Amino acid sequence: MFDYTLSTTDGAARAGTFTTPHGDVPTPSFMPVGTAGTVKGLIMEEVEELRARMVLANTYHLYLRPGHEMVRRLGGLHAFMRWDGPILTDSGGYQVFSLTDIRSVHEEGVEFQSHIDGSRHTFTPESVMDIQRTLSADVIMAFDECPPGGGDRATAETANRRTYDWLRRCLDRFRALEQEVEGPAQALFPVLQGNVYDDLRREQARQFVDLHDWRGYGIGGLSVGEEKEDMWRVLEILDQALPRDRPRYLMGVGYPDDLLEAVARGCDLFDCVAPTRNARHGTAWTSEEGQVNLKAARFREDTRPIDPGCDCYACSRYDRAYVRHLVVSAEWLSVRLLSIHNLRFLVRLGEEARRRIGDGSFDTWRRDWLERYRNERSLV
Amino acid sequence: MFDYTLSTTDGAARAGTFTTPHGDVPTPSFMPVGTAGTVKGLIMEEVEELRARMVLANTYHLYLRPGHEMVRRLGGLHAFMRWDGPILTDSGGYQVFSLTDIRSVHEEGVEFQSHIDGSRHTFTPESVMDIQRTLSADVIMAFDECPPGGGDRATAETANRRTYDWLRRCLDRFRALEQEVEGPAQALFPVLQGNVYDDLRREQARQFVDLHDWRGYGIGGLSVGEEKEDMWRVLEILDQALPRDRPRYLMGVGYPDDLLEAVARGCDLFDCVAPTRNARHGTAWTSEEGQVNLKAARFREDTRPIDPGCDCYACSRYDRAYVRHLVVSAEWLSVRLLSIHNLRFLVRLGEEARRRIGDGSFDTWRRDWLERYRNERSLV
Repeated sequence: MFDYTLSTTDGAARAGTFTTPHGDVPTPSFMPVGTAGTVKGLIMEEVEELRARMVLANTYHLYLRPGHEMVRRLGGLHAFMRWDGPILTDSGGYQVFSLTDIRSVHEEGVEFQSHIDGSRHTFTPESVMDIQRTLSADVIMAFDECPPGGGDRATAETANRRTYDWLRRCLDRFRALEQEVEGPAQALFPVLQGNVYDDLRREQARQFVDLHDWRGYGIGGLSVGEEKEDMWRVLEILDQALPRDRPRYLMGVGYPDDLLEAVARGCDLFDCVAPTRNARHGTAWTSEEGQVNLKAARFREDTRPIDPGCDCYACSRYDRAYVRHLVVSAEWLSVRLLSIHNLRFLVRLGEEARRRIGDGSFDTWRRDWLERYRNERSLV
Repeated sequence: MFDYTLSTTDGAARAGTFTTPHGDVPTPSFMPVGTAGTVKGLIMEEVEELRARMVLANTYHLYLRPGHEMVRRLGGLHAFMRWDGPILTDSGGYQVFSLTDIRSVHEEGVEFQSHIDGSRHTFTPESVMDIQRTLSADVIMAFDECPPGGGDRATAETANRRTYDWLRRCLDRFRALEQEVEGPAQALFPVLQGNVYDDLRREQARQFVDLHDWRGYGIGGLSVGEEKEDMWRVLEILDQALPRDRPRYLMGVGYPDDLLEAVARGCDLFDCVAPTRNARHGTAWTSEEGQVNLKAARFREDTRPIDPGCDCYACSRYDRAYVRHLVVSAEWLSVRLLSIHNLRFLVRLGEEARRRIGDGSFDTWRRDWLERYRNERSLV
């Protein structure tokens, strides 16, 4: 269980299969985000139809509402969400560190105020393990210190040190829970920090690898405002530093072009709220025209699908003129259709990358794809 | 085409079939409202799964956005909405008369300002026929004067006179368009006004019946704030005054109890935005507990379906605890699931009424149903 089998590589790009108690995850794979136990607006049959394999849920949100104990009483996260496939929960670290004005960080953990009602709470490495054990996702994430993007070296050093200390505490608690508390098989992934400092990234990776034989690695602290070149360089460093036979989950990425660049640098799993957030703004990704906003007047009588190359429900059933009408009229169906399309766009990108890695054409295809996508974007 | 076959009656209640170019409508039948060419948040496969037969769309909204000519260029309303079943468009009269501060009524028609951008427009009986011909629904409604609820007798008299004048103009234009403009077969229904004044109601019905052999009748000016007893009395009067072999469409009704009361008084077709509007407020209709709001704390760990007696998708797949979590978290999926449930609740009520009329048990069943529904409501 939680094995990762690498089937082919093409340069640093990897095609593999990650095994979980709720099914296999072929990689590269984009994971839709189900923050509060729901992939915004979609039923799980639709998520299945996207051919998404693994979905995310947020520990911070579910801890506050409805509460992890409540989720347990309702049968655990799979039953609660009506999703029989693999689930990953994040650690809540990213969320509580985002609450910059209403949290304080101590060696012990993070005190924070709920964004819902201002009530006070504390997350510690131990409590976050307890919560995620109770939620019972397949993959759970270690509680890390995630400093804001653009921080200096000293901040990154402190965060790395604390992240490592907390990781050891997470591991101790995780092992104890596995012994003491009945529950499903779970895998704990650590979260690598180190900002854009190459030596800190290398050092943290080495520490983690030495500490334990993890079933996979979370790559944190990227896509938080740094230059793209810095992100690519860090991924190249980590590709060298991390074991090849374990999946790498690049947290919070991505946009289609970022996802492809990261696959090219050895990343396997991805998540991002952009597909559904963009949908709320009327924005769609297309293979022929890059990123478009359906509000644009040029779509008024456009009877082509949102993306003529796409096989999603929205593209097979509706046209741009109708979707534009829905967007302009602020009709919720537009959000639903664009969410389906954008999510499928990323899932399909993972599928195609995998196919291209399989037949050795990944690198050429990726270059062409990115050139077309970026050129088109700049024309819009 | 547009025949109405009465198969059984039980007291004044009627089971029949209304034939349209896009399929038959068994009555009594609730028609989901697709204001802007979309039943809020739902795809048409879901509307079909509700076993809704006929849907509504709003002339006022579609005229303003995307424009009726645009709908025509995009293939007409059926193609635009992706709905192959029967469609009825209202006349926009109700909407423009609701714009009390930004409209003025003349013999010629109604000048009004768009609620979207304040632009000025005029609806006349003729233009409303043109617009509805262009939209090309199966059933179209005459342009009537719909005074606000609670008006005095003089206002009702004026409205009746104008509604009758306008109806004649609608009929002339409708006939001319049928001759001159290529298009689908359509039926024009008049809209009966007269507020709660029995003699005005009788007089208007007689005028309309004398003017033309209409394929069906819209009953307007009810459910606008009058006492329920007044509404029931008016329906009883109209049941006597209108031809038995034509469907009666009670506009803007209803809530489940109102729908049953109206079926008992000879009404056949219904529409109302309550199912989807209530869904946005977290409210569901249930057969065992009346109208409930899912926000209530008592549903926190309730693992029963929204309505255990219901066969809709939401009830067969989710439980109250999860739906409550979605409502409390302001997740849009709650609106979608509750819309599906509430719409199915009304469609199913029509189906069951039809069955009960068929086997002669309608009246007993209705009394029991209403007593239970109302008692339960008062307990909540």
